[in-house]
Amino acid sequence: MTRRQPKIRKTRDQILRAATEMFITRGYAWTSVDDIVEAAGCTRGAFYYYFEDKEDAVRMVQRRLWRRLAKHAEAAFEPTLGTVPNLKRTLGAHLSALDELGPSRRILREMWVDPSLESIGSEEFDRGVGVIEEFLAHSMRRGEIVAMDTRPLAVLLTGLFEVATAYALQMGDASTTIEAVNVLLDGLAVPAAL
Amino acid sequence: MTRRQPKIRKTRDQILRAATEMFITRGYAWTSVDDIVEAAGCTRGAFYYYFEDKEDAVRMVQRRLWRRLAKHAEAAFEPTLGTVPNLKRTLGAHLSALDELGPSRRILREMWVDPSLESIGSEEFDRGVGVIEEFLAHSMRRGEIVAMDTRPLAVLLTGLFEVATAYALQMGDASTTIEAVNVLLDGLAVPAAL
Repeated sequence: MTRRQPKIRKTRDQILRAATEMFITRGYAWTSVDDIVEAAGCTRGAFYYYFEDKEDAVRMVQRRLWRRLAKHAEAAFEPTLGTVPNLKRTLGAHLSALDELGPSRRILREMWVDPSLESIGSEEFDRGVGVIEEFLAHSMRRGEIVAMDTRPLAVLLTGLFEVATAYALQMGDASTTIEAVNVLLDGLAVPAAL
Repeated sequence: MTRRQPKIRKTRDQILRAATEMFITRGYAWTSVDDIVEAAGCTRGAFYYYFEDKEDAVRMVQRRLWRRLAKHAEAAFEPTLGTVPNLKRTLGAHLSALDELGPSRRILREMWVDPSLESIGSEEFDRGVGVIEEFLAHSMRRGEIVAMDTRPLAVLLTGLFEVATAYALQMGDASTTIEAVNVLLDGLAVPAAL
């Protein structure tokens, strides 16, 4: 198993690269499994060994793109700073990183266009709520943000962030979206901290 | 045409009432056009005269529920108050009114459950962005909120509000959601107004 893994990864990555390319140039809706198989230079059997269907492949592509954005956000986190500055830094980094995805950005947009791709969205949403809720609980214990029930606030922030991502992708430029997000995040600071 | 309208409205309303009842008790996914026709005591022909399909009927039901919520929001608007208090009042009234919808609340939730019902969501979303953008532009001219591009801020607020509605519906109680919305809205006030 261990010995076979590099080969497995190589074929799967080859298919994913080909799928990414097709989704970008032709669009997800207009790409078939046969197109991907042809572009990847593999067999249909190889495709169906790794993926259930086209949706399964695009979900994996999207998941990887989200992970790349999340890494940018994590790198922007600065432990010595307070809650609101850190929320601004991490969300800003995530939104700015959309530009660095280049044409793959288009694949993320499909999530809000094709209803069958919603599930990856709700998976990322739940993950976002978990991360943000933990962060908020920590900040509240330190008195850096208004004390309240962390769950609804985490849900709202994740939702705010999701719509910001969709809008920035649609506009092709994240700067005005980041500005608007920052204004709303300012509401979180405890009055004394202003 | 004018003379026939009361009759038309009566049959259509009868179908919508029956559909609402079925969607509540059985759930949207498990209700067929035949179920609705039977409950309404009308013919299939009558159903298809007013609606293209089941989706078309549920969209109309949802649209009416949204309009009821919007009326509560409009009634809470108080022209003598500032921007942030008014945003809090109207959004709070909308969220609180979810309770008053009674069991029909369940039908609104379908919008986030069944991907085929997304279109009514994006229709309401665009309407929300339009209303909020106009309101923000007016508030900025009066110097009541931070001056910036109104469009991204209107999109974010509408998104915030949509996720707040979905969460309040899921929780069955709007109070903690309203509290979280209010905290974020505080970020909009110009520093001098604090």
